[in-house]
Amino acid sequence: MRLILASQSPARLSVLRSAGIEPVVRVSGVDEDALIASLEDPTPEETVVALSAAKAEAIEHDDECVVVGCDSMLLFEGELVGKPGTPEVARDRWRRVAGQSGVLITGHTVLRVSGGAVTDRASGAESTTVRFGTPSDEELEAYIATGEPLHVAGGFTIDGLGGWFIDGIEGDHTSVIGISLPLTRRLLGQLGVSVSTLW
Amino acid sequence: MRLILASQSPARLSVLRSAGIEPVVRVSGVDEDALIASLEDPTPEETVVALSAAKAEAIEHDDECVVVGCDSMLLFEGELVGKPGTPEVARDRWRRVAGQSGVLITGHTVLRVSGGAVTDRASGAESTTVRFGTPSDEELEAYIATGEPLHVAGGFTIDGLGGWFIDGIEGDHTSVIGISLPLTRRLLGQLGVSVSTLW
Repeated sequence: MRLILASQSPARLSVLRSAGIEPVVRVSGVDEDALIASLEDPTPEETVVALSAAKAEAIEHDDECVVVGCDSMLLFEGELVGKPGTPEVARDRWRRVAGQSGVLITGHTVLRVSGGAVTDRASGAESTTVRFGTPSDEELEAYIATGEPLHVAGGFTIDGLGGWFIDGIEGDHTSVIGISLPLTRRLLGQLGVSVSTLW
Repeated sequence: MRLILASQSPARLSVLRSAGIEPVVRVSGVDEDALIASLEDPTPEETVVALSAAKAEAIEHDDECVVVGCDSMLLFEGELVGKPGTPEVARDRWRRVAGQSGVLITGHTVLRVSGGAVTDRASGAESTTVRFGTPSDEELEAYIATGEPLHVAGGFTIDGLGGWFIDGIEGDHTSVIGISLPLTRRLLGQLGVSVSTLW
């Protein structure tokens, strides 16, 4: 059975590969803003689950496969924190979060496809607390100069250079990277698929 | 400035590489059992710190470098848990820990070497709680058959196939892999070395 990863994130791909799965990667063209606007008063969990489902549905499916859709967001002081985009925003962001905690919410939808049709589906979300360290000015400038934090949700990674500046987490670290292995395993299990059959 | 990693662990090497450092790897021939026997009533933290120091001291040093020594152990129900070695021990181990928590303790010693002599040193330990999931019999047999859990402390990894069966942690995930980035950064800082100068 093939696993199709409906995400272009190299970090998610790397997590799956390290964990024994070589997925097919297919990227959806979901209009995330339009989808979010269509939800009525969604919780963060409902938002990431809805986005993960839309991404899993939108890609082309093989006749026999499982499809995994993913979406993640960082909440800090109750606010959704996106990709910084510029060095200035990344710098301001890190000055605010340094020494504080945020919550990384990841949603997944797994589809079971048989005979070319979706025959079953399961969705869920995980929340993980992230404790940010306090980089020195020199370290923060060096980190920003690498470009790494500019294009990732929340302006940090835990699996790259940002790992030096994350003091700890409470929850599942693969969820923070963008694809929760334990949650994906539970959702696969709900569809009768044992994860070890995908190794 | 070069960083010398006094460990043959591919997982530690991989963590450092992902975090921007290409270390020189040198493996010490420390007699761990003899060293532990020489300690008087050591706490687990004292044990991993003493082992990390011995490993950092034992390898050949460059004229100008920093050396990082590491040691990790898993405590489960107050007992030290080593490498299973055989499928039978790995199976028994996982049946005991499934659904329970253990504590992974990692110790590091960082040496600053200048003009070929150790001019400064710093040591510390981190404890991280690991919540084990419950693999099905099929999953556990498939996991053991890969050989991965047999030769790692505690009989699990969080950065390989074992990641499917770790529900979460409280602490630093790189510490569980064997080299804590935030602790290493703090120890380097105590020696006046900013981690970003090693990228």
